[in-house]
Amino acid sequence: MSNSGAPSAVQPNATGISDEIIFKKELLDYVSGFQVLSPEEIDLIMDNTLVKSFKKGAYLLEEGQVADKCYFVLKGCVREFYLIDGEEKSTAFYTEGQAVNSFSSYTNQQPSRHYLICAEDCVLTVGNQQIEKEMCQRIPRLESIIRQEVERNTGKAQDDFARFMVSSPEQRYLQMLEDRPELLQRIPQHQLASYIGITAESLSRIRKRLHKQT
Amino acid sequence: MSNSGAPSAVQPNATGISDEIIFKKELLDYVSGFQVLSPEEIDLIMDNTLVKSFKKGAYLLEEGQVADKCYFVLKGCVREFYLIDGEEKSTAFYTEGQAVNSFSSYTNQQPSRHYLICAEDCVLTVGNQQIEKEMCQRIPRLESIIRQEVERNTGKAQDDFARFMVSSPEQRYLQMLEDRPELLQRIPQHQLASYIGITAESLSRIRKRLHKQT
Repeated sequence: MSNSGAPSAVQPNATGISDEIIFKKELLDYVSGFQVLSPEEIDLIMDNTLVKSFKKGAYLLEEGQVADKCYFVLKGCVREFYLIDGEEKSTAFYTEGQAVNSFSSYTNQQPSRHYLICAEDCVLTVGNQQIEKEMCQRIPRLESIIRQEVERNTGKAQDDFARFMVSSPEQRYLQMLEDRPELLQRIPQHQLASYIGITAESLSRIRKRLHKQT
Repeated sequence: MSNSGAPSAVQPNATGISDEIIFKKELLDYVSGFQVLSPEEIDLIMDNTLVKSFKKGAYLLEEGQVADKCYFVLKGCVREFYLIDGEEKSTAFYTEGQAVNSFSSYTNQQPSRHYLICAEDCVLTVGNQQIEKEMCQRIPRLESIIRQEVERNTGKAQDDFARFMVSSPEQRYLQMLEDRPELLQRIPQHQLASYIGITAESLSRIRKRLHKQT
């Protein structure tokens, strides 16, 4: 795959070769999970999937760019944020086993309104529309598999959105503790605060209050 | 198509025949928009798509049920809401040209956490997984079309979610005025208030303040 058209901020990790080999094994486990695929089809997918390392701080997408790539996290964390009045508002953290796809930009070829940045050193699969199309032509049932995966992710996003809408910041914090406790170790508190819709000071107060109650 | 397994609350409109014929024409316009489909394929889709009328107040899905149908709004409005401590929290209003699909329940066959109710008299297409599967087998390129539509809707949902997360209730109200001004005429104020995450009283105050400024 050619890297032409890659966002200039994307910095492959020159020392990351071994990571890429290690995590290609994880990808194989994931792809092998789709039991409708034959061993030959799995080989074809593996041969055509680019696995790449990115340093913490590398941008995968910037506001105004049209997304020409989609990603899947094998290792690390990708943060999605909006820049509003000079302030970063974090709206998603994608970790191991999650797809990173800015559909409104990637599928509709519209300029992105958000940024994607590696919140940690990352190992990601990197895909684009052309590879996707070629692979679906060679493995027709792949179209159905991808569609089901998109629907599954969409269902999760719908649930997350609704839960965010109907809950208080404290409830959102408790939910995060339950669903994704590892984020607290991995992500700075001010970014988690904006993710649940409050200031870092308010999050600090919530944590103190909950700590007292336990 | 058999109606067995339909939620008991779904009430077809016995007098709705003419509506169904009128709106089948709208569906034809929509399906014809996918220019990769041949006239024969369009006929096949039209022959296999059920168009049905529902009275205002009919439930399409209730909390705890597994969604076995998906819908597309030809006329009317479907409201999605969660019941929390006995209070309805509205999280979506689907109007003409929008798909109504509770993916986390429909695709993953999990009990739904929300309700879907007709907020107005509605004319909807009604699909299920079996029809979808059969149609995709007969028209293989349909799989790709559906996938693109799901991705387009997902992109919109991602944008909506992010915008909700990073904005104040007043900003959400102004955004709704800009994007979907018709909702103000169609939906009671207390439901719109919960949709933007505030009480009806707060929404009333915001409206008064904005009215004074203009």
